Amino acid sequence: MNQKIRVGIVGYGNVGKGVELALSNTNDMELVGIFSRRDISTLNSKIGKPTFIHYDNIYDYEDKIDVMLMCGGSATDLIEQCPYVGKKFNIVDTFDTHAKIPEYFKTVEASTKQNNKLSIMSVGWDPGMFSIIRMISQAILPNGKDYTFWGKGVSQGHSDAIRRVKGVKNGIQYTIPIQSAIQKVRNGEQPQLSTRDKHLRECFVVLEQDADKKQVEHDIKTMPNYFADYDTNIYFVTEEELKENHSKMMHGGFVLRTGTTGNNKHIIEYSLKLDSNPEFTGSVMVAYARACFRLNKEGHVGVKTVLDVPLSYLSDKSYEELISTLL
Amino acid sequence: MNQKIRVGIVGYGNVGKGVELALSNTNDMELVGIFSRRDISTLNSKIGKPTFIHYDNIYDYEDKIDVMLMCGGSATDLIEQCPYVGKKFNIVDTFDTHAKIPEYFKTVEASTKQNNKLSIMSVGWDPGMFSIIRMISQAILPNGKDYTFWGKGVSQGHSDAIRRVKGVKNGIQYTIPIQSAIQKVRNGEQPQLSTRDKHLRECFVVLEQDADKKQVEHDIKTMPNYFADYDTNIYFVTEEELKENHSKMMHGGFVLRTGTTGNNKHIIEYSLKLDSNPEFTGSVMVAYARACFRLNKEGHVGVKTVLDVPLSYLSDKSYEELISTLL
Repeated sequence: MNQKIRVGIVGYGNVGKGVELALSNTNDMELVGIFSRRDISTLNSKIGKPTFIHYDNIYDYEDKIDVMLMCGGSATDLIEQCPYVGKKFNIVDTFDTHAKIPEYFKTVEASTKQNNKLSIMSVGWDPGMFSIIRMISQAILPNGKDYTFWGKGVSQGHSDAIRRVKGVKNGIQYTIPIQSAIQKVRNGEQPQLSTRDKHLRECFVVLEQDADKKQVEHDIKTMPNYFADYDTNIYFVTEEELKENHSKMMHGGFVLRTGTTGNNKHIIEYSLKLDSNPEFTGSVMVAYARACFRLNKEGHVGVKTVLDVPLSYLSDKSYEELISTLL
Repeated sequence: MNQKIRVGIVGYGNVGKGVELALSNTNDMELVGIFSRRDISTLNSKIGKPTFIHYDNIYDYEDKIDVMLMCGGSATDLIEQCPYVGKKFNIVDTFDTHAKIPEYFKTVEASTKQNNKLSIMSVGWDPGMFSIIRMISQAILPNGKDYTFWGKGVSQGHSDAIRRVKGVKNGIQYTIPIQSAIQKVRNGEQPQLSTRDKHLRECFVVLEQDADKKQVEHDIKTMPNYFADYDTNIYFVTEEELKENHSKMMHGGFVLRTGTTGNNKHIIEYSLKLDSNPEFTGSVMVAYARACFRLNKEGHVGVKTVLDVPLSYLSDKSYEELISTLL
């Protein structure tokens, strides 16, 4: 049996816990430690007894960990941590701030190359699996148009936005793809779809005592960027109802491409229906951690994305088994 | 502008014509010639004026063609032609005889390595796109089960089998996935499905004059391997009806994987709905020809499959454009 791949988790929020769970389902990987900036005496695992280590001591593990799984948020954590951690370790992250991807790529590349490490960036389902599907589908059907729909699922950013509204005690937001729009795409109609045509937003809101319901409703529906361009339905619920019915972090979505060859029409559709967004994201990261380790061992350094990784590197099965059972 | 990739087509049946059509939609590839074992004076293109060349003269093109697209059938053509053509050219093929894949891999590898050429084998949609989806999905959700359904679509092999039955003048067979079975999978039930549970077969048959209808029906329905294990519906039609309503080579199918992380369920679904099986297959081959050329230029030789090719190699777009628009 080969040596196991030694893995660390950086950041112990929902995605970090998802990675921990996914690692417990592998035979070829070993969780060495979980790094956090919080007081580590306050941290607990629901599924095992991992070693918690303060983030400040991460460089002490330079020779003890093969790949670090970076589980912080894109907005502030990854931008700061990945260049720092990537100097000493192979890393996998879920960076998803679209507009900043090219710039972030260069920053992380400069860092990982210093000690011949490799980063695989923007791993997950979007960016990630959906990027792969968009990439292949465009290459195969150059005469066509593709569409991405998200949901039904919880948007953390929009839920946060609701909770900042005056009079709101708690709340959650679901992004919902509009079925009639998906159906038009499936029919190969290649419709032009506005933001409002593709998704609607559903909010479940718990009010503060004495809050002005009408005002809250107005403030949410007219919020620029988040809600103004969408049809938004607001439902007022109690704190208990919110906890009982709306605490699952479900998500998912659809990527479709329709295109033609000569007079013939073709439709490619990929969809995900996920009970737990962070656990699925963690599972994708773990598969790419395996690839990251192997590619680095073969001499690859710098930054790669899901568009660069040969897919067989994701699996713990032998190449012979893959081509005889999966091809 | 870079030099265009110089491509040849070997075999001018339905897939060869699909490749010709797909090439006409590229900007970075050029069709140098179409090679056939038939009398080339009898060959005609519906979309352009390609150069037809007899297969016997293929080695004369050694320095004039970068990649040969091998468009013969798996059963007899590819097994013979790919080792021969692969000695002098990079090749892409659609080899799909599952049981023989490992053996075929070795034969072609021995041939291509002689002159540092590269083959990408078993390209298309199954094997091909479906293999990619099965591969990624298993790696991400190791606790799960996957399912492949084919259709609705025309099966060439089963149509040929019908036409060999005594009393049958002409006929076509559709493989149809059973929707209730797909629905069970989509619900995450992970059902055990027999051959009969997954697909049914629909035959449209033109009888010879004075044929024994009952006997034909019996002979088809009880044919081992092809029909005996399935529910089969037979419809008798006229030659005109067959031509009018059943001459499209539509196909497609579904790959699903359902799995769990902890207590949470996840469903991955990929589907294709293709008006023309050979034109879509040809389009996939053309994208992999691009990858084959590039990989060989970088020094890769021997045999690769869709599980080995980094996806960005399929596209004619720059890497910068891919990561900023597709990731």
